[in-house]
Amino acid sequence: MNGAQALIRTLAGCGVDICFANPGTSEMHFVAALDAVPSMRAVLGLSEGVVTGAADGYGRMAERPAVTLLHLGPGLGNGLANLHNARRARTPVVNVVGDHATYHKQFDAPLESDIDSVASNVSGWIRRSMRPEDVAADATDAVTAALGPPGQVATLILPADVSWLDGAETAAPRARPARGVVGDDVVAAVAKALTSGEPAALLMGGTSLREPGLLAASRVAAATGSKLYGETFPARLERGAGLPPIERLGYLAEFTMAQLAGLRHLVLVDARVPVSFFAYPDKPSRLLPNGCEVLTLAAGADDAAEALARLADMVAAHAEPIRQAPSRPDRPAGPLTGESVAQALGALLPEDAIVSDEANTAGLWAPMATAGAPRHDWLTLTGGAIGQGLPVATGAALACPDRHVVSLQADGSAMYTIPALWTQAREGLNVTTVIFANRSYAILNMELSRVGAEAQGPKALSMLDLSRPDLDFVAIAQGMGVAAERATTAKEFTRQFERALAEPGPHLIEAVLPKSL
Amino acid sequence: MNGAQALIRTLAGCGVDICFANPGTSEMHFVAALDAVPSMRAVLGLSEGVVTGAADGYGRMAERPAVTLLHLGPGLGNGLANLHNARRARTPVVNVVGDHATYHKQFDAPLESDIDSVASNVSGWIRRSMRPEDVAADATDAVTAALGPPGQVATLILPADVSWLDGAETAAPRARPARGVVGDDVVAAVAKALTSGEPAALLMGGTSLREPGLLAASRVAAATGSKLYGETFPARLERGAGLPPIERLGYLAEFTMAQLAGLRHLVLVDARVPVSFFAYPDKPSRLLPNGCEVLTLAAGADDAAEALARLADMVAAHAEPIRQAPSRPDRPAGPLTGESVAQALGALLPEDAIVSDEANTAGLWAPMATAGAPRHDWLTLTGGAIGQGLPVATGAALACPDRHVVSLQADGSAMYTIPALWTQAREGLNVTTVIFANRSYAILNMELSRVGAEAQGPKALSMLDLSRPDLDFVAIAQGMGVAAERATTAKEFTRQFERALAEPGPHLIEAVLPKSL
Repeated sequence: MNGAQALIRTLAGCGVDICFANPGTSEMHFVAALDAVPSMRAVLGLSEGVVTGAADGYGRMAERPAVTLLHLGPGLGNGLANLHNARRARTPVVNVVGDHATYHKQFDAPLESDIDSVASNVSGWIRRSMRPEDVAADATDAVTAALGPPGQVATLILPADVSWLDGAETAAPRARPARGVVGDDVVAAVAKALTSGEPAALLMGGTSLREPGLLAASRVAAATGSKLYGETFPARLERGAGLPPIERLGYLAEFTMAQLAGLRHLVLVDARVPVSFFAYPDKPSRLLPNGCEVLTLAAGADDAAEALARLADMVAAHAEPIRQAPSRPDRPAGPLTGESVAQALGALLPEDAIVSDEANTAGLWAPMATAGAPRHDWLTLTGGAIGQGLPVATGAALACPDRHVVSLQADGSAMYTIPALWTQAREGLNVTTVIFANRSYAILNMELSRVGAEAQGPKALSMLDLSRPDLDFVAIAQGMGVAAERATTAKEFTRQFERALAEPGPHLIEAVLPKSL
Repeated sequence: MNGAQALIRTLAGCGVDICFANPGTSEMHFVAALDAVPSMRAVLGLSEGVVTGAADGYGRMAERPAVTLLHLGPGLGNGLANLHNARRARTPVVNVVGDHATYHKQFDAPLESDIDSVASNVSGWIRRSMRPEDVAADATDAVTAALGPPGQVATLILPADVSWLDGAETAAPRARPARGVVGDDVVAAVAKALTSGEPAALLMGGTSLREPGLLAASRVAAATGSKLYGETFPARLERGAGLPPIERLGYLAEFTMAQLAGLRHLVLVDARVPVSFFAYPDKPSRLLPNGCEVLTLAAGADDAAEALARLADMVAAHAEPIRQAPSRPDRPAGPLTGESVAQALGALLPEDAIVSDEANTAGLWAPMATAGAPRHDWLTLTGGAIGQGLPVATGAALACPDRHVVSLQADGSAMYTIPALWTQAREGLNVTTVIFANRSYAILNMELSRVGAEAQGPKALSMLDLSRPDLDFVAIAQGMGVAAERATTAKEFTRQFERALAEPGPHLIEAVLPKSL
């Protein structure tokens, strides 16, 4: 068999069952080989940001890698921002980038570029297959690398001739690498800090934000009086009625500083010391109170939930976790605002929903309004590279076909990867997209003042303004095959949202909000 | 003044008068400084591929750099594909990428990444300003580097604190760097080859494809019997009635080999030895007949037109150039096909039009049908990274507000940078976009066979198919504020195209072609 056939078969043998693709000529043998492997689903994205973001969303929910198929350096470039987000989310991704034939590279053909240097920005592992005979071993290594722990982007560069030449064979899958076990001494040291009587907090991130970790941490907090925080932008947070609620650290540095004020011990659980998202004149970058000791209970490669369970057994043997009581807000009425959209979400969010949250400023109220809704997963913009929301929703829906995905999407950010809607339509995905249409890069209006840039002339403001002309997301969505409606009142939105949830297939609602300026 | 103010003022002093921007928080001081410099126009792109492609189109037509404004590594990634095309076009671009504050980088905030390594892929010059005091000199160096010759992408990385701190001053502009003068011995050697009586050809590229170079080369060809070829994908080709016609080398290797068959001397004029766009099993990469000698008359940094003029004086003192006779096809009737769309273009293309050509397979007939149309410029996909067409059209229209831009756009390629339409609407640009809607990545259907990948199962074919659902470009364009219509017959298309050319502002026509499979 040729290299491409060996690659797909070997990946499938390793449990990789979906390929998000935007191929070109150098990937045609990979494409041709897809049909011979029934277990490998192939999903076309009309731009590479859709492909890589969907692989991120898929990996977050399925906990195993999807494979991407990108075309040379420019294709990788187009997909780089969402691979950046996947890197920050520590999502397992097998990122296959086609390249010119090995002997063709010396001629510097028009699409020639240095794929490795671009890939190095987002990849924890990079390899170039140089012979068909190597492809299967490279593929298993890529899957193993992608799984980590922690998960990462593993980039496999596949030259066209390695793809088309015969001589390849498949390789057997390897066992999934185990997470590390945290030492008892580490657990004991954390226990000592948390029971010292001094103000202490657990900062939870990564894999600890799932049910087992949350339950154990909640017991610890209840028994020791420690505070419980979640990282600002978790890859995947399990929440809702019956699960321990957790307060995420604020996006703004001053909020985080207020949350952490007075702490003497901060215990990191698969999380990092909080830093400001951006630097601001005369404001700190590292957001840790003076005199606060930092302890690490579990790092990214560790089994954080198991370490938390041992910690709970040590300091909270008889404590019960605090569980969020079921509670839904009433259906909203009155004007449509970020707050009333959130209220409708809280009123209607279905059981077991997956929320892809890139609503940014206008979505500020959504987490609070859905805190007591039925249990659900919340996926956030881990790396800050906007354009994540729609593709991640797409990938999550493919990973979990029995769950409804709600995609909360800021209007400005939506435009980077808007062709994701077409993939949702083609695949018939149960995704309801809510566009928070405030006709503005609202966050930049806020940041323009916060960075101390005071001169806000018309040219500057026009760079933050999405009107002139207003984007008509209903037309855009319909143009990509997605049923769409526009809401201008809270009642209208609620009715449309309820209907969208009840019907199969993708829907989009443009929620027209007061213009943010 | 602060670093951002010094940067914009210095760039404006160097003749840079337009900024294509997609800013984030780290670029807010740059944005705030825009209003203080009246000569600097600011144009918002809703994704970075629009920004960089527009800078490419602007630079090709204005022959001076635009400045881009991109947000950190992910923003640069999103803009990388069109910077790749600009690099291949040797377009001058001053590519400003904002970064975190210098002291903030150590904290690995969510958007932190290695900007330099990504930029190295497309930039002939990279610098990071480290103090406000350095910004002005860095800006003049960037403009000088961008101008070359040949033109290139000069990337200036601007940390947020260097932007906001005071202590900067402006710097005076420098003289535009001159092109090199080709030695008389080189011209004489070329003259000898061309008058040897053996089969010879000139391969013209880069700056030689403008009127002075074309006229001189045509005289040379007329006097010596040499053939005249243009490179396959020129950045900017002047053509039409009154100018010497030139045959471009084919995209397919076998076409180029047929064109060059039997040649004994190939003279490169700001062009490179032809290589196959992709490698194919058992086909050559370097497309040069056996025994053909290669001579270089002018390289990228040289004054190719002046060298051609001296060559013409030497071998063709009394020869006249061949000039294309004015000739337009009749308005087409019958079914709408790539051929009849091309016929309508030939019938109606306005004087002094600029054609941005990313029509790919369906646009095959357009160059021939417009050969005798009034004089115009033809801009092609220089680097093969699709998604260039709409942004380049946008930038070209801003560079030449008195000329009409016709944007020939394949449907698949359109989706990578479709928000360019919104920028065309906001800026009120005279761009008429023709979408060649064959509902397919048609070129890949061709390539799938050409690479020898024979097994064309339903999964493979679905990766090349843009239907299920069909994209409705009329709805998408209207959703971005661009007037749009759909044409299904040649007459309908011709009528719509004529109307679009007559009305100010952007228009889009979705030309529904037979589905390519």
